[in-house]
Amino acid sequence: MTIRSSSAAFSDEPTRLEKIVTQVFADASEKFSATLHNGSSVELREGVSAQDDCAVYRCSGAQDLVVGSDYVRGPKFRLYEAGHLDEYDLGYYLASANFSDVAAMGAKPIGLLTVIRYPPDMDDEVFASVLRGVQDACTDVGAPAIGGDTGGAERLILAGTALGVCPPGGALLRRGASPGDLLCMTGATGIAGAAMAYLRKGELSAEIEACHRDTLLASWKRPRARTDAGERLGSSGLATSALDTSDGLKAAIENIAAASGVGFRVEEASIPVTDEVAAVCDHLGLDPMATVMGDSVDFELVFTVPADRIDRLSALFEAAALTFTTIGRATADRTVALYARDGRSRPLPGAAWRHQPEIS
Amino acid sequence: MTIRSSSAAFSDEPTRLEKIVTQVFADASEKFSATLHNGSSVELREGVSAQDDCAVYRCSGAQDLVVGSDYVRGPKFRLYEAGHLDEYDLGYYLASANFSDVAAMGAKPIGLLTVIRYPPDMDDEVFASVLRGVQDACTDVGAPAIGGDTGGAERLILAGTALGVCPPGGALLRRGASPGDLLCMTGATGIAGAAMAYLRKGELSAEIEACHRDTLLASWKRPRARTDAGERLGSSGLATSALDTSDGLKAAIENIAAASGVGFRVEEASIPVTDEVAAVCDHLGLDPMATVMGDSVDFELVFTVPADRIDRLSALFEAAALTFTTIGRATADRTVALYARDGRSRPLPGAAWRHQPEIS
Repeated sequence: MTIRSSSAAFSDEPTRLEKIVTQVFADASEKFSATLHNGSSVELREGVSAQDDCAVYRCSGAQDLVVGSDYVRGPKFRLYEAGHLDEYDLGYYLASANFSDVAAMGAKPIGLLTVIRYPPDMDDEVFASVLRGVQDACTDVGAPAIGGDTGGAERLILAGTALGVCPPGGALLRRGASPGDLLCMTGATGIAGAAMAYLRKGELSAEIEACHRDTLLASWKRPRARTDAGERLGSSGLATSALDTSDGLKAAIENIAAASGVGFRVEEASIPVTDEVAAVCDHLGLDPMATVMGDSVDFELVFTVPADRIDRLSALFEAAALTFTTIGRATADRTVALYARDGRSRPLPGAAWRHQPEIS
Repeated sequence: MTIRSSSAAFSDEPTRLEKIVTQVFADASEKFSATLHNGSSVELREGVSAQDDCAVYRCSGAQDLVVGSDYVRGPKFRLYEAGHLDEYDLGYYLASANFSDVAAMGAKPIGLLTVIRYPPDMDDEVFASVLRGVQDACTDVGAPAIGGDTGGAERLILAGTALGVCPPGGALLRRGASPGDLLCMTGATGIAGAAMAYLRKGELSAEIEACHRDTLLASWKRPRARTDAGERLGSSGLATSALDTSDGLKAAIENIAAASGVGFRVEEASIPVTDEVAAVCDHLGLDPMATVMGDSVDFELVFTVPADRIDRLSALFEAAALTFTTIGRATADRTVALYARDGRSRPLPGAAWRHQPEIS
């Protein structure tokens, strides 16, 4: 909840840029550098405090640079409109959503540009809280906020561009899977979707309120981009493809299948279903598998690994205190299907995020 | 003018991404590479048609990477709302505004990411025309559109991120000017501001309609980022600072002064005033110098060059069929002032774009 003081300040754009943006972002934006295991390096030479037209990196040696942009729905964000998220949360989410794309490429994040346009009634303190959310998410993945664009608009508009680097050829595309590769994922999906379903429905459950509400809300308030796992996947050279689950698990699997020209046999018994998802589905009468597979905007990674490399990847993840789950296998037959314990199969349930007819 | 056929198609987001975005952007996004004079190079490995989470560049050797983001006001764009610009024009403008930041850093443009969010009533053909505008501006500066983000929103939202490279240390910051440096600019400013003033006022002049309307409108419909000049400035090592005039000429000069800790003596007689600007100012009773200096969103470059290097820079520009004008000189005294022919001085007239109280 944002407490607005009676002495709310509304600085003009140059003042916000000079005072608030530089203050929140500057320290972390001054001394960032990264070295890859092939000896190549990237160093931020001019970040936010230079307040120049662009940020400047010095790149040395051979490396792959990955760069992607994501728009975040701002005030159309349903849980923000309903008062479940505040502006800090939106800033955090903006950064995480963008870093997730870098993680999905198997790259190490090196920076984030943000477009932050604020409505006339957003005071300096609330504007600063958006930036603090961005900054804290940047700190959590170890990459700096390097500037971007800010100014007024008729409503809050949030977009970002994240950059990352990996050794030459290390970038993980969606098209690299081959028949026989194991299908794996970090963490568990469905939590963001379950949270949305539960909070929008508004029929509270005593058990969920007591045990699961914080975890459900955290999937929106503090989504963590899987940059640690992504960086290891890319630098290891062991994975053959990767995507994040920001359009849902079903969409990620089907996209890898279509791009790679393979199918997937996905084992229902292997798909992680968390207690929160199970509780919400039970409470609302939803199919857990459709919730886990469908339009839940989680930021996990889905990736493929040749079977004979899976032990090496497990050891690598374990050494870094990271985990993943094997949930299926790529097939030469291009069908993507979910197999139940009894051997019966069906198409992956749920609807991908982007196919939703509703736009917000 | 956009002609909407009775059979307007409204594809969903994945279809637009797969059919329209890749169709418009793909060819140019497949084979881009650039080599700097120090032998370092950058090559686009995965562009739009990979449809992956990020685009991928292979960077080899030492180089400075510059990257910046700009939001474009979309439907709040006054001249778009008034019917003077169409969606193609907005796409072109979006790309140019972003490439202008790369030009101002003295870098060679290597790509553009776009965030294009469309309202429910924008059909496939109009959506494609936004992309064609982006693509044509990319073609004009010789850099590819490499993807980004698209999808629905409650209104048109346009933002971008441009990338560029230059030799190590070649990036031109605003803080590099020293007393004695000559102050120079490409082209002429005030045209975009004059166009806005003329078209908003709505009092048509027969002379302006006959002789100047096309040029005035072109400043909004086909703004050209000065990437050719910028790249030469950066690679030559001759300039000491640069900015673009997207916040106005006055703002650019005052920003270089503040960042560099210098003042500027600007000679009014040297400032280019085009026939269009003179005609509009005469017609509307405006001060030409305030129009040229003020909140006119042109994409020219303002830069400083030590006096003993100006001849070399002139020769370099001439060889490339480019021009610039020397309009003043940096001073140790931190005052920025405009000197008339009679020797009297005043602060730079006009108001910077970003200080306008109106947000749109």
